[in-house]
Amino acid sequence: MKPDMIMLRLGELTLKGKNRSRFEKVVFEQVKKSVQSFSRLTFVLEFGRVYIHLNEESYEAVQKRLRKVLGLSSFSPVYTAPLELEEIQSTALAAMEMLDNGQAEFKVTVRRVNKKFPYDSQEMNKLVAGYILKAVPGLRVNVNQPEVELKVELREKQALIFSQSVTGVGGFPLGTNGKAMLMLSGGIDSPVAGFLALRQGLRLEAVHFHSYPYTSERSQQKVKELVAKLSGYAGDIRLHMVPFTSIQTRIHEVYKEDLFITLLRRAMFRITEKLAENYGASAIVTGESLGQVASQTINSMNVIGRAVEVPIIQPLVCMEKKEIIRIAEDIDTFEISILPYEDCCTLFMPPYPSTNPSLRIVESIEKSMEWLDAELDEAVRLTEQIWVGADEKPQFAALF
Amino acid sequence: MKPDMIMLRLGELTLKGKNRSRFEKVVFEQVKKSVQSFSRLTFVLEFGRVYIHLNEESYEAVQKRLRKVLGLSSFSPVYTAPLELEEIQSTALAAMEMLDNGQAEFKVTVRRVNKKFPYDSQEMNKLVAGYILKAVPGLRVNVNQPEVELKVELREKQALIFSQSVTGVGGFPLGTNGKAMLMLSGGIDSPVAGFLALRQGLRLEAVHFHSYPYTSERSQQKVKELVAKLSGYAGDIRLHMVPFTSIQTRIHEVYKEDLFITLLRRAMFRITEKLAENYGASAIVTGESLGQVASQTINSMNVIGRAVEVPIIQPLVCMEKKEIIRIAEDIDTFEISILPYEDCCTLFMPPYPSTNPSLRIVESIEKSMEWLDAELDEAVRLTEQIWVGADEKPQFAALF
Repeated sequence: MKPDMIMLRLGELTLKGKNRSRFEKVVFEQVKKSVQSFSRLTFVLEFGRVYIHLNEESYEAVQKRLRKVLGLSSFSPVYTAPLELEEIQSTALAAMEMLDNGQAEFKVTVRRVNKKFPYDSQEMNKLVAGYILKAVPGLRVNVNQPEVELKVELREKQALIFSQSVTGVGGFPLGTNGKAMLMLSGGIDSPVAGFLALRQGLRLEAVHFHSYPYTSERSQQKVKELVAKLSGYAGDIRLHMVPFTSIQTRIHEVYKEDLFITLLRRAMFRITEKLAENYGASAIVTGESLGQVASQTINSMNVIGRAVEVPIIQPLVCMEKKEIIRIAEDIDTFEISILPYEDCCTLFMPPYPSTNPSLRIVESIEKSMEWLDAELDEAVRLTEQIWVGADEKPQFAALF
Repeated sequence: MKPDMIMLRLGELTLKGKNRSRFEKVVFEQVKKSVQSFSRLTFVLEFGRVYIHLNEESYEAVQKRLRKVLGLSSFSPVYTAPLELEEIQSTALAAMEMLDNGQAEFKVTVRRVNKKFPYDSQEMNKLVAGYILKAVPGLRVNVNQPEVELKVELREKQALIFSQSVTGVGGFPLGTNGKAMLMLSGGIDSPVAGFLALRQGLRLEAVHFHSYPYTSERSQQKVKELVAKLSGYAGDIRLHMVPFTSIQTRIHEVYKEDLFITLLRRAMFRITEKLAENYGASAIVTGESLGQVASQTINSMNVIGRAVEVPIIQPLVCMEKKEIIRIAEDIDTFEISILPYEDCCTLFMPPYPSTNPSLRIVESIEKSMEWLDAELDEAVRLTEQIWVGADEKPQFAALF
């Protein structure tokens, strides 16, 4: 049996009143856009709920898209039946049979909206549960802690039957909290930071630094694949490919010591800030996690971040590596991230990068590089912009 | 049957080599301090593993302490038996019987370190698994995906038998990434931010702003209880109680509009920065989460954060509310946080706080308050310092 409808639950449950209704509207718009290639779907708003009528479109294909709509916390496949006892009983049984066999304890909850229906909710409860118990050996009723709650709603024109709740990606609707530039290396962390920022309602553009020809074209391909995974949640994402070879080489000609990485990272942040200004983003998102590597001590992150005035958002700053990896697996970026292609940071890497750089010394080294500002501007000028779409295209419009 | 030993697993698995061995030493020191009130315990380091011999101390009491040692990822209760087949079989059976009944599929893995033991690991496998199968009806062997793996290690002098792995708090050892001031309101978020910062290796001092007598003494008591929960992971924590009434009242006398909260929050950050300097902390930790309330837009957080030079760490910046609540429940702060006592921010709250404050305007309002700097210094001078210990005292020494 195939579901006839999908019932949607929009929005983060804990959001306050005013924001909530605004966000629900945005999520609903995004839902419609995410499935607009399925031409037979119709949408119904009823008693504060949103339903998608499948009209013979594939539930499997539609639900795959819904699982990536930001702000959609969960949804349920719904089976319908005419308002007749036997029809409701057999549909309820079929709905139970669609579930995994492992779930042996269930209860039925009937809501009679249509008061003309001949049995009241108590009676219907027994009639439906009894029918299922007789048909499926091994099932038990457990009213207090059921593994499955089968809901039957007796509406004016039909009965709705549903039990399964599919968890959506949740979070804030796309772009409701502004726009940021995501600094994206090829590693495990930055795509996860990007996903969490998207989920928190930030629209993203991605910025990648490459040292071509010292780094390979394949490492650039890898970054595009990572962005494509994020696009699955956000629609096409603009990727800025910054040529970094010249800056890296020139810095290395005059300075090779323990502050080399600090100088490079500051240059990257300054370029990213310029791109943020040019493309209307008001923050920078990074994958930094406190204590992971030498450049991620408190002091190091501070000296690097002080290169810019735009706020820096670090979603992973206090997250454990195993949790970061779990999310990377969830969003399907892990396998791409662990591909071995080197990024620009491996070029000219000093053996002992500083964990405790001095802002004063760093700034005075930068002052001695009188060509640096012009090089940063040149890198921005030479940056290539590419739009990266998802492998499987959801059709999101830029609402913000 | 009671376990005879506890086997510890130290450190975050993914840490790099050099740091790892240093961290393991720190965690081991913390483990010893956390259980030093149990005088009969002895510690054994063997083949790169750490064991605690219980010597009749209570496993339950000891494991409760171990679960809060930062950097300890997991541990196992271990049963010992003399090197005789029957003894090993009956101990293995008893160890299986200690587990929940629900786990029906198991396998036995034998490691024969002592090559003089008469049966090899394959034979022992069969002898132990067969013995258990015969004794416990309903059990099944599943070599590929067992619910329980019972490990038997045949050592020189005895056999070690263990299966259960208890998850510890994990993270970085206490204080290995520096020290920060935690801005702690009475709400749900800031204690969670504090816990995540502790787990990321930050030693913490807590800073709370109160508007006594406008806010009650009970709201101060609530904050102490929240700090006590964090002390369970960190040993005694210094709590700074900042009297904020005077600043709040004076600001309100001259400015009541939409930037009031922005001005207050900037004053709080500046006081916290001064305390950080006085007490040797190099960062401020806050519970801010992007988009939750008016003062937590990107721009608002930026204008507030720009009041200070010290880096600001926001562990919750891209975390969903339901995940924050889950952690609050885990660390036992949720029930305290939802107590209704108001904090200082509810005093003089304007109806529509700005979501998009202008740094320039805020700074010019502050400039017009020529008394502000002196008030901030006075608030720091009048701040009361209290040491807050855990309800159940672990005995951590300040290693850093």
